[in-house]
Amino acid sequence: MSHNKPLILITNDDGLIAKGISELVKFVRPLGEIVVVAPDAPRSGSGCSLTVTQPVHFKMIRKDVGLTVYRCSGSPVDCVKLARHAILDRDPDLVLSGINHGDNSGVNVHYSGTMGAVIEACVNRIPAIGFSLCDHDQGADFEPMGKYVRELTKMVLLNGLPDYTCLNVNFPKVEEIKGLKVCQQARGSWSNEWEPCPRSFDENYYWMSGSFVPLKKGHEKSDNWALANGYGAITPTLVDMTDYKFAKELDSLVAGLLMEDEE
Amino acid sequence: MSHNKPLILITNDDGLIAKGISELVKFVRPLGEIVVVAPDAPRSGSGCSLTVTQPVHFKMIRKDVGLTVYRCSGSPVDCVKLARHAILDRDPDLVLSGINHGDNSGVNVHYSGTMGAVIEACVNRIPAIGFSLCDHDQGADFEPMGKYVRELTKMVLLNGLPDYTCLNVNFPKVEEIKGLKVCQQARGSWSNEWEPCPRSFDENYYWMSGSFVPLKKGHEKSDNWALANGYGAITPTLVDMTDYKFAKELDSLVAGLLMEDEE
Repeated sequence: MSHNKPLILITNDDGLIAKGISELVKFVRPLGEIVVVAPDAPRSGSGCSLTVTQPVHFKMIRKDVGLTVYRCSGSPVDCVKLARHAILDRDPDLVLSGINHGDNSGVNVHYSGTMGAVIEACVNRIPAIGFSLCDHDQGADFEPMGKYVRELTKMVLLNGLPDYTCLNVNFPKVEEIKGLKVCQQARGSWSNEWEPCPRSFDENYYWMSGSFVPLKKGHEKSDNWALANGYGAITPTLVDMTDYKFAKELDSLVAGLLMEDEE
Repeated sequence: MSHNKPLILITNDDGLIAKGISELVKFVRPLGEIVVVAPDAPRSGSGCSLTVTQPVHFKMIRKDVGLTVYRCSGSPVDCVKLARHAILDRDPDLVLSGINHGDNSGVNVHYSGTMGAVIEACVNRIPAIGFSLCDHDQGADFEPMGKYVRELTKMVLLNGLPDYTCLNVNFPKVEEIKGLKVCQQARGSWSNEWEPCPRSFDENYYWMSGSFVPLKKGHEKSDNWALANGYGAITPTLVDMTDYKFAKELDSLVAGLLMEDEE
């Protein structure tokens, strides 16, 4: 096997059976040697979670020229960790995750298993992109985003990404995408997040639900705005979450605490 | 019930039964009206994960003056979401999470269920602090950090925190803490993350394991360094993960793509 072709690791959070991951493989297959390590069942909303209370298992289920596929019993982050430490003989040149059936823009980056895998790669300084389509349907049409997925993948293979920065790329559910916008993570929050599902003698059961309400301020630069207006939204995403700006003010506050302590 | 006392919501990821959450309640109980909503079992490594494939249940298990306790079948993030939308009659003034049995400094912020709850509060602009002790032992001694936990909680109740910034506070396992340092999220990554646990006829089973290897560069300012040197590490943490600095460069790269497209 030649090492000249880029090694591309692909995973997702909807599970191996989802249409989105097959479409992603199809779009980027000409660009490198593809290894898929993906969850054996849906793992939506798994964020950066790890499996710690039971062993994680993987199994090769397909091996073709240029494409090897493994299913894994763990989370998307587990898939990346297992691929790197127990499956691949070298680090991938690129990690791709998705294509997610559903929007991962704005604060969803925190809850998203798709982005969990991307963050895991990025923490280990492997360039990584998460792709999502704002359509939860199992049969969603990924075709309109195909050329953008391919071009962005080529761009990152060619130029890399800064250490500790990854890309969160979301596409609107439209027949024709207007183009790409580099965006900011939308500010806002979820409302109506719980749907009661009471049972006899106990009403305290709830299904996760809800809708995202973006803040108005700075809205036009946000990924949420781009999607609502027909653009693909590329949000460059830092895995170093340190608030360097607030650090100085916090320093004085904390110093104050210590002085009181000594009195 | 008076609304003049601050309403403090407390959760964790080690579950209601863990010593750390009892200790946290003990340390801060004089500072407000305390409501605990915590997982009914350990949820370590759950990050910002959500429970989406089954209903989430909660139950009140204790009601004293100034302290009400609920157990919840969901993740730490679910606990905060349920508390806000189905349990409390107003938003808490502060969310505290922990005290975690184990280190949540550096990149662990992404995997940590303790910090997941904190991030959930912060996204909703509620001041929030995660507390952790670098000691996995069930009977760990939290006493040395008690006064710091109390002082930092008072500080945040008094001054608040910037919107979309929360605190990740970790303490070393020492008898006497040297003081507090405002830190940066340590750069580095985990190695030896999997421990094989083969079974008959199938060797592809692994336990999550590993140790954190910090990068040398910038090490003295990192939370990891502070902990290794006997200090409590306060890492101000942003939930807006946008890489504003890289956005401009990315803009030109992406504009290039589009021009090629039009040729």
